[in-house]
Amino acid sequence: MSLVVQKFGGSSLATPEKIHRAARRAIRSKLEGRRVVLVVSAMGDSTDELLKLASGVCSDPPKRELDMLLTTGEQVSIALMAMAIESAGHEAISLTAGQLGLVTDSAHTRARIQRISRERIDRELDQGRIVIVAGFQGTDAGGEITTMGRGASDTTAVALAGALGADRCEVYKDVDGVYTADPRLVPNARRIPVLSYDAMLEMAGAGAGVLHPRAIDFARKFNVALEVRSSLWEGKGTMITPETAETAALPVRGVVLREDLALAALAGVPNQPGVTARVFAQLADKQILVDDIVQGVEADGRTVRISFSISRTDAGATREVCERLRQQCGWAGVEMDESVSKISAIGVGMRSHAGVAHVMFDALARAQIDVLGISTSEIVISCLVRRGDGPRALRGVHDAFGLGEPGPQAPMSGVTSLQGPAATKL
Amino acid sequence: MSLVVQKFGGSSLATPEKIHRAARRAIRSKLEGRRVVLVVSAMGDSTDELLKLASGVCSDPPKRELDMLLTTGEQVSIALMAMAIESAGHEAISLTAGQLGLVTDSAHTRARIQRISRERIDRELDQGRIVIVAGFQGTDAGGEITTMGRGASDTTAVALAGALGADRCEVYKDVDGVYTADPRLVPNARRIPVLSYDAMLEMAGAGAGVLHPRAIDFARKFNVALEVRSSLWEGKGTMITPETAETAALPVRGVVLREDLALAALAGVPNQPGVTARVFAQLADKQILVDDIVQGVEADGRTVRISFSISRTDAGATREVCERLRQQCGWAGVEMDESVSKISAIGVGMRSHAGVAHVMFDALARAQIDVLGISTSEIVISCLVRRGDGPRALRGVHDAFGLGEPGPQAPMSGVTSLQGPAATKL
Repeated sequence: MSLVVQKFGGSSLATPEKIHRAARRAIRSKLEGRRVVLVVSAMGDSTDELLKLASGVCSDPPKRELDMLLTTGEQVSIALMAMAIESAGHEAISLTAGQLGLVTDSAHTRARIQRISRERIDRELDQGRIVIVAGFQGTDAGGEITTMGRGASDTTAVALAGALGADRCEVYKDVDGVYTADPRLVPNARRIPVLSYDAMLEMAGAGAGVLHPRAIDFARKFNVALEVRSSLWEGKGTMITPETAETAALPVRGVVLREDLALAALAGVPNQPGVTARVFAQLADKQILVDDIVQGVEADGRTVRISFSISRTDAGATREVCERLRQQCGWAGVEMDESVSKISAIGVGMRSHAGVAHVMFDALARAQIDVLGISTSEIVISCLVRRGDGPRALRGVHDAFGLGEPGPQAPMSGVTSLQGPAATKL
Repeated sequence: MSLVVQKFGGSSLATPEKIHRAARRAIRSKLEGRRVVLVVSAMGDSTDELLKLASGVCSDPPKRELDMLLTTGEQVSIALMAMAIESAGHEAISLTAGQLGLVTDSAHTRARIQRISRERIDRELDQGRIVIVAGFQGTDAGGEITTMGRGASDTTAVALAGALGADRCEVYKDVDGVYTADPRLVPNARRIPVLSYDAMLEMAGAGAGVLHPRAIDFARKFNVALEVRSSLWEGKGTMITPETAETAALPVRGVVLREDLALAALAGVPNQPGVTARVFAQLADKQILVDDIVQGVEADGRTVRISFSISRTDAGATREVCERLRQQCGWAGVEMDESVSKISAIGVGMRSHAGVAHVMFDALARAQIDVLGISTSEIVISCLVRRGDGPRALRGVHDAFGLGEPGPQAPMSGVTSLQGPAATKL
């Protein structure tokens, strides 16, 4: 008998009606002859409400107690979901992470899954029940309650699907899939029918909020057939799968805008070995993630200029670290631009197509948008732009790669396939 | 080192300020050199809000899932309390029933404690921490989450105090102790400084909502020194202790009005063996608690009239049971008066004083209040009255027993001590 894991996020559970709607999906899958495991998040914005409660009591809550507090949100959801399914005449049982045996390490608020026991879930499924699991939470080996970070219910679902050998993991969202760009910013953005794990991972990493990166990583690791679908209406979503001819056919599958960045620049840094290493070691100590590092020689020919992007919320801490080092090492200055966005073009087909960067730069140039920095990886090209230019840059690049055009998308002008006769130069 | 268990109810935790106030109490006890265990309820009316959520999803929620839902309320409280104590610079740790090892039977929504493990609490106390325990909840032997009924956090506190051999269990309330009568109805009601377990148990049973009856029963069983205190202001509360000369000195310690009753009467019942047993067996099957049963011969001399009081919420179900039996057995009729209150006078001293009933009936007669029924036990006399007469009856009886008078209360006129020379007839 096939097994499906279905995950519903907080906005898909915000009201009793929405809970019943999700319950009906699960029941339908059950009636189609599947074993069904549901993973649910906390209702609506209840996690934020719990965080507000905590901050009303304590400015810097101990992480263990924060986990104790926040896990109640998912516990409420599993109980209500079980009630909804039972009230529709089907058997259901809710399970906390502790009851199920989802064991994490002990890193409160950012725990990682270590193992998942099948025993309890299998027993309940064998009795014909729909099993409802609390997302986001775990317990460590000592029975302490942990959480795995915001959005980690996706990870719970995919990891469960992997552990249970599920045929499919369906993640229900307010949107009906992954789009070529954020439809709120790009009106002609289109749903992507099939996307590879690698491309999805890079899109999530670049700022597409559809799925939690760790969930995608788990899906890739355990080869879970993952589908992002709409909780509101019927119809297909986006299948996220191993790389196929289809997913690799296009050089660029999507463009992503990340708007919460700052750009730091260290000016006039003595060009001595170890200085750069010292800067980034100290930033890493403060848990500051650094991206897009560019180093160039200054006009004086003796010193260098080091630029890097960071999350805007880390700007203050970064400035502090850099200022302290500046005073010790005698650089010319520390600059910080807190109005920076990053636009990324992503596609596994990029590996086999030349000219992708050219199309992107050309689109930005035609739109008269200054590029503040560039970074590339095997399947991603990113440009830093001024925040105000972001949405316009996104639309320009989206159009340049032909992502808004209907039908099977064709490689666009200026991009050369590096592979076989199926992809001809246009 | 002495150990104190302190229990705070929902209204004492309704806001961050109140949580901090409770935290300061616990910290003060800690600084006085005690080991401190806190037991907390769900904040404010959050249990009612959770029940409302459940009823929005399902008209008759499965009890297991109701327990899964409701226990989140206390889990929120323990986390916030730990945060409040830590933010004041003291170490604290919150524990769910499962983490602590408070094991109940499997009767969801009305579970009973089977055993409490000391191990985890002792370990945390040994490290100098204030331990915060979720009231109301337990886990059964299979790890299923249970609850013990509304108000059962008192029971958690007293049972923990017993299991840990605590020197004292302090229960903090919105009132500063147990009163001779409800001060909202009787303006000259006075706080009772010391009360025996037995009297407190009868007062709770008669409708005084201060403490959960099972908590008092546990206190008596494990000989826990129990104090009801105010969470709002300093000063003594009511000590609840084994019977002493002080607690037995007065015939009546308090009067209690219960206003949610109905009086059922079965008229013209054939006086055959087994008929009465059949009525009450069927009521018990429906979990209907019956009180104050009076049976008398009808005017015809051949049939009997059976009256009994029940909770008003059970009136409909009781009428159904009785009507069905009436049709089978051919009684004359089933009557139901849904506007009945019960006034009870309670005191362990009643055992050794005569004339108590006389004083009570006399007070009611002087106030021209009809008595609809009477029941007595060793330390309680109760009269059923019309609901509209309740508060006036309460004030009259309270005054007749001299309970509103200042200073050490003296046995009142008309009551005779049956013991030694210390108590002389007045």
